[in-house]
Amino acid sequence: MFNRVLIANRGEVAVRIIRACWEMGIETVAIYSSKDKESMHVKLADKALCIGPAEAGKSYLEVNRIIEAAKQNNVDAIHPGYGFLSESYEFAEKCLENNIVFIGPSPEVINTMGTNKMLAKEKVKIIGIPIIPGIEGIIKNKEHAKIVAGTLGYPLLIKAANGGGGKGIRKVCRSEDFERNFSLCVEESYKAFGNQEVYIEKYIEKPRHIEVQILVDKYNNVIILGERECSIQRGNQKLIEESPAAILENELREKLFDFSKAIAIECGYCGAGTVEFLIDEQKNIYFMEMNTRLQVEHPVTEFVTNVDIVKEQIRIAYGERLKYREEDLKVRGHSIECRINAEQPEKNFSASSGVVSSLNIPGGNGVRVDTALYVGMKLEPIYDSNIAKLIVYGRDRHEAIRKMKRALCEFIIEGVDTNIEFLLKILNSRKFIMNEYNTATLSEIIYESF
Amino acid sequence: MFNRVLIANRGEVAVRIIRACWEMGIETVAIYSSKDKESMHVKLADKALCIGPAEAGKSYLEVNRIIEAAKQNNVDAIHPGYGFLSESYEFAEKCLENNIVFIGPSPEVINTMGTNKMLAKEKVKIIGIPIIPGIEGIIKNKEHAKIVAGTLGYPLLIKAANGGGGKGIRKVCRSEDFERNFSLCVEESYKAFGNQEVYIEKYIEKPRHIEVQILVDKYNNVIILGERECSIQRGNQKLIEESPAAILENELREKLFDFSKAIAIECGYCGAGTVEFLIDEQKNIYFMEMNTRLQVEHPVTEFVTNVDIVKEQIRIAYGERLKYREEDLKVRGHSIECRINAEQPEKNFSASSGVVSSLNIPGGNGVRVDTALYVGMKLEPIYDSNIAKLIVYGRDRHEAIRKMKRALCEFIIEGVDTNIEFLLKILNSRKFIMNEYNTATLSEIIYESF
Repeated sequence: MFNRVLIANRGEVAVRIIRACWEMGIETVAIYSSKDKESMHVKLADKALCIGPAEAGKSYLEVNRIIEAAKQNNVDAIHPGYGFLSESYEFAEKCLENNIVFIGPSPEVINTMGTNKMLAKEKVKIIGIPIIPGIEGIIKNKEHAKIVAGTLGYPLLIKAANGGGGKGIRKVCRSEDFERNFSLCVEESYKAFGNQEVYIEKYIEKPRHIEVQILVDKYNNVIILGERECSIQRGNQKLIEESPAAILENELREKLFDFSKAIAIECGYCGAGTVEFLIDEQKNIYFMEMNTRLQVEHPVTEFVTNVDIVKEQIRIAYGERLKYREEDLKVRGHSIECRINAEQPEKNFSASSGVVSSLNIPGGNGVRVDTALYVGMKLEPIYDSNIAKLIVYGRDRHEAIRKMKRALCEFIIEGVDTNIEFLLKILNSRKFIMNEYNTATLSEIIYESF
Repeated sequence: MFNRVLIANRGEVAVRIIRACWEMGIETVAIYSSKDKESMHVKLADKALCIGPAEAGKSYLEVNRIIEAAKQNNVDAIHPGYGFLSESYEFAEKCLENNIVFIGPSPEVINTMGTNKMLAKEKVKIIGIPIIPGIEGIIKNKEHAKIVAGTLGYPLLIKAANGGGGKGIRKVCRSEDFERNFSLCVEESYKAFGNQEVYIEKYIEKPRHIEVQILVDKYNNVIILGERECSIQRGNQKLIEESPAAILENELREKLFDFSKAIAIECGYCGAGTVEFLIDEQKNIYFMEMNTRLQVEHPVTEFVTNVDIVKEQIRIAYGERLKYREEDLKVRGHSIECRINAEQPEKNFSASSGVVSSLNIPGGNGVRVDTALYVGMKLEPIYDSNIAKLIVYGRDRHEAIRKMKRALCEFIIEGVDTNIEFLLKILNSRKFIMNEYNTATLSEIIYESF
């Protein structure tokens, strides 16, 4: 097994990966920006290096400096976590050039399937998997684009080709708004992802966002670890996730699994990955995009399958074969995750800051907390607003919901505003309880609440 | 389902039961001694009543006052937790007389199988299950007893008939020590359990302590939830427990399960119960005793079976049928529990006290913490020294051990001395890692350590 792994990330995901390495007997090297000096990931790692100033572009996104740190510390591999460089094929390539294992798929696969969402759609279309209708290819001329958009029909989405994490997406409802939004999206895309390419697709009304978790080893063994229901979203950012997706009948589920398997094989995938689909009200399936990395919501899958996805990523990257029998992978029970964010829902979800003065972490049967919080921690709205993930397991959806409510009530974070009350509001809403929600539901709940 | 349940206990087990009730939509009534006014179980319950002064005999063991509190608050049922009144058939009887459901088996079964350990042995012997050889019946005359003991041979154990939790047991190695120990045991027994009866059995050398978890509903459906390995003990007090017991081959395991099922049926058992066995170095099985209640170590079983034992207790007491298929009960993976105690191992494990000034609770994949600790809590050595239970799940024993070590290292409790370092010492010992331990091993580790 690897002797030493560098974790090119921060916060709870860095802690998640450090714990996995620790349990596998692998030494860890953490990196941190000057703002994160006192962070939990810095304290838990065997070694930690300051990599630059607060600004992510000069620290957590600084490819050369990270590679340099990895080389100086003789690390065997780098785990990118999620966000930051996790879907950068240039970073994966740089690792390869420097004889460092990148824990993830090959740079080519990242580029085709992860970095450039439009390339992925083209690839997937070829093997006969339904994609969201749209304008093929990259849009270079906005005047021409507007004409073609007219034939596609409104509402439509303009999306950054290199987008991810729900960023760089603009919905356009009328042709007169097209040009302005097009320009804004190009600008946003360049700012956030360093790339101006955008593409256009039809806006699917009130779909479910359901994704399939796959694991593929270097010997083309593909396993499916069930699916996740991620339709509770605000501005394309997921907030609550579940596994299994209670809406799926077996036939539909099998179809999603077959599509995901076909995509994994077609693109020569390796590692842990997620294939995201939209399912409209008529139960039509559309491939949306692939995430060639670990996902924030991976713990719900871990609860219902008992597979440790991060450890499997590491084992696969090292060259081990997947060692699972069909029966090991049977989904059991129901799991839900809530993302606890430092934000003020009543003030349009603006980021909050403060010093954590008191903390009560819920526990007991079927409760998991992934967080890098500690008493005395200073929270500033520099990076992502997510500060903890609360994940529960119940024997069915009903029990999982009740357990989540119980655990949220026990979760006390003082000194900084959070969305805990708001999460309870969602869990108490009729649409959530009855499982009658889609990606538009959260906006409705927000509209009714504030 | 019940509307309201009174929890006749304190500390982490009271919290455990309150959480289960909460998730089931059942209101909770907590009781507390004047010392426990600021306890977590008091804060989490819907209602809490002071039941008496610090001394347990005048509060948590005060049957009449507890029944009175239950009646005044219109509770439907009482959950006794473990310890205190959990194996008191008088208490169960009083509940019955007052039309309150006692969450546990009938008073008769408690009396035969739980309260009086000697009666249980006789019952079990009749149906052909091997018991530890000993002197039959209650010993009334110590001079006569000494003569009979001579024929049984030394070393032997003198045990309180109404004993439990590892208390009221004396090992005698030579006949000249018999009379003194006999008198001491009678005295201890009276003090701790209000009963002078003792019995004598052969001392089994270096056995494994392995117990089977059963659930029986009111319709005589018996299910087995695997077994637990509990041989890491200090003075008959368990410290680390595992499930499954890695030492058991399938044949031996099946035998334990068959014996346990036969006992459950023979005694007309109902509810959650544990059948405890000793297994000697030649793999001989001896029935030791039965616990007619929830056990401290129940979470390891919950991790490997995904069954919530406390909720099942409540459902069974309410009259529901068990709803499990054979495949639901397949043991998956490996779980370990460590009991974190407020004690000083280097000072002969004397109880420690203090105010909790800082707390870091470990989290992440496969980590469960059951505790009533909070920052600012005042700990005094009045009740049990156990302050937290740390339970982990791994896909195999190796992974579970590593995860436990990781989680113990992350567990920080400041302001009061604990046995965390000592637990790590055990986990790092060759005998534990190689699974070559028995009930004598911990004494050896202690002897080598201090």
